[in-house]
Amino acid sequence: MSDLPASVRITEEGPREGFQIEKGAIPTARKIALIDALSQTGLDHIQIVSFVNPKNVPGMADADAVVDGITPQPGVAYTALWLNEKGFARALKHRRLANTGTIQLCASEKFLKRNQNRSAEQQLAGQHAIVELYKAAGVAVERGSVMAAFGCNFEGDIPVSRVVALVQQILDVAHEHGVTLKYVTLADTMAWATPASIKHVVGRLRERWPDLDVALHLHDTRGLAIANAYAGLEMGVTRFDAAVAGLGGCPFAGHAGAAGNVCTEDLVFLCEEMGIATGIDLDALIACAKLAEDIVGHPLPGAVMKGGTLERFRG
Amino acid sequence: MSDLPASVRITEEGPREGFQIEKGAIPTARKIALIDALSQTGLDHIQIVSFVNPKNVPGMADADAVVDGITPQPGVAYTALWLNEKGFARALKHRRLANTGTIQLCASEKFLKRNQNRSAEQQLAGQHAIVELYKAAGVAVERGSVMAAFGCNFEGDIPVSRVVALVQQILDVAHEHGVTLKYVTLADTMAWATPASIKHVVGRLRERWPDLDVALHLHDTRGLAIANAYAGLEMGVTRFDAAVAGLGGCPFAGHAGAAGNVCTEDLVFLCEEMGIATGIDLDALIACAKLAEDIVGHPLPGAVMKGGTLERFRG
Repeated sequence: MSDLPASVRITEEGPREGFQIEKGAIPTARKIALIDALSQTGLDHIQIVSFVNPKNVPGMADADAVVDGITPQPGVAYTALWLNEKGFARALKHRRLANTGTIQLCASEKFLKRNQNRSAEQQLAGQHAIVELYKAAGVAVERGSVMAAFGCNFEGDIPVSRVVALVQQILDVAHEHGVTLKYVTLADTMAWATPASIKHVVGRLRERWPDLDVALHLHDTRGLAIANAYAGLEMGVTRFDAAVAGLGGCPFAGHAGAAGNVCTEDLVFLCEEMGIATGIDLDALIACAKLAEDIVGHPLPGAVMKGGTLERFRG
Repeated sequence: MSDLPASVRITEEGPREGFQIEKGAIPTARKIALIDALSQTGLDHIQIVSFVNPKNVPGMADADAVVDGITPQPGVAYTALWLNEKGFARALKHRRLANTGTIQLCASEKFLKRNQNRSAEQQLAGQHAIVELYKAAGVAVERGSVMAAFGCNFEGDIPVSRVVALVQQILDVAHEHGVTLKYVTLADTMAWATPASIKHVVGRLRERWPDLDVALHLHDTRGLAIANAYAGLEMGVTRFDAAVAGLGGCPFAGHAGAAGNVCTEDLVFLCEEMGIATGIDLDALIACAKLAEDIVGHPLPGAVMKGGTLERFRG
């Protein structure tokens, strides 16, 4: 039997996921315009920038200006991503950001080695260090995260036992430093998940930690993100990351293998049509998706923004 | 609990769905090339043309030449679509077509009126007449079909009780004329279905007719086709229509509200990754999807053809 939740919480990651991957400069004012429009849709959490090395990610060189330029709305948490202490220090300067800390491990050692030049042991040690850093800065540590939780282009399939072990490590780190996580995100970083593996992994976590709040971060590189989200909903998952219009990689622009997150408005449509409250105004969100498409200057993969909602036919 | 089937049967409708909607003439030889390539993938049923009025559907004006031009493969059933007696007469001329009859009703009276200028009563009477026509021609009547089974742009939501009543009518027509249907297709003609409604409607049919083989024909206009297919799989559905590369409407080319069927190779990927056998060579099918994109000359929505399979990473 399915067990669909009554409501879900969606974290919008389009501005961060999308603008860091687009080729060509996007004017800061247009990034701000999209974030301000998203702020009017009912979304209560928008990840707006990443504080990373502008040499590696030129699209985020204006991150400080973006944060300074938005018009914050009450009830909306604006957050940023960072990968190291330097990025965290930049984020801390912005009072309008709702900075929170994440304890993050990776299910693929090869991916970790390749992307951060770290072993699993080094990554774990680093999490102990960063939690202390967060505590010293007065930043709440609210989230755990397991990257590549369903598979890895460099390592292949990931056994569920490894994901369980990593969640245990994350909870141990939190416990040791006296912080209580609100939830743990499973990230399908390289789009290996299927609805069956979503159910299997989430199910195993539920068995071991019945009260653990699991979130899903799903990429659509192989077209299964919305089906994977549905499988998550069937397992009672109530937290999802998503990207308006499917921003975050564009299969039509030659970003091979890098499709974006599950599309926010398609996910909202899925939920609302099944009676799951999102708190989001779908029509306003679709307008944002069209704005995003206009800003990046090429088609984005979102479907409902093109196919339209059903409400207009219900009279 | 989910109840995934061990194997599924996929009817490829890309050539028919796709080439009838594309603007601009596609050379007959290229249509034939795609069909011949699809014939080498393990697909055992390909709907290749429709016999319709070339004034209304210029893309199918060469339907006879397409049928004559293909190189039929053993074990592959090639079929055609027709909407009236005249089209059926054209199909009958082709010995290489595996012509079979369908008893088709529509869950939306407004859609029926608008598209075929018929009332529900007239449609039902017409089915009695056409079954006799099929029998006289020695054509097996194998399939029932309910159009707009999940909702209609002109009528709105469709109550499940109406779908049950229409399936009853279809079975009554079959019984009255002494034919035994192999399966009944629920067509989400205007893309109103959600995973929840798929489960609800299929579940109700199962309750009433435990042995009825239900097939799904799913459109992706609102991005839910693959999630709807998964919901069908969870209900034990083993027959799906699909279109290579998602042919059959292109949201990127201004065919508003007319996205194609669920993408065949994405569906095959979904199934095979979950251990459900399709009998189809995914790599060969992806090559067909790329050929289809080359033929129509614009991006098609299929994801796996862009994101790639996982097998290459498994070593």
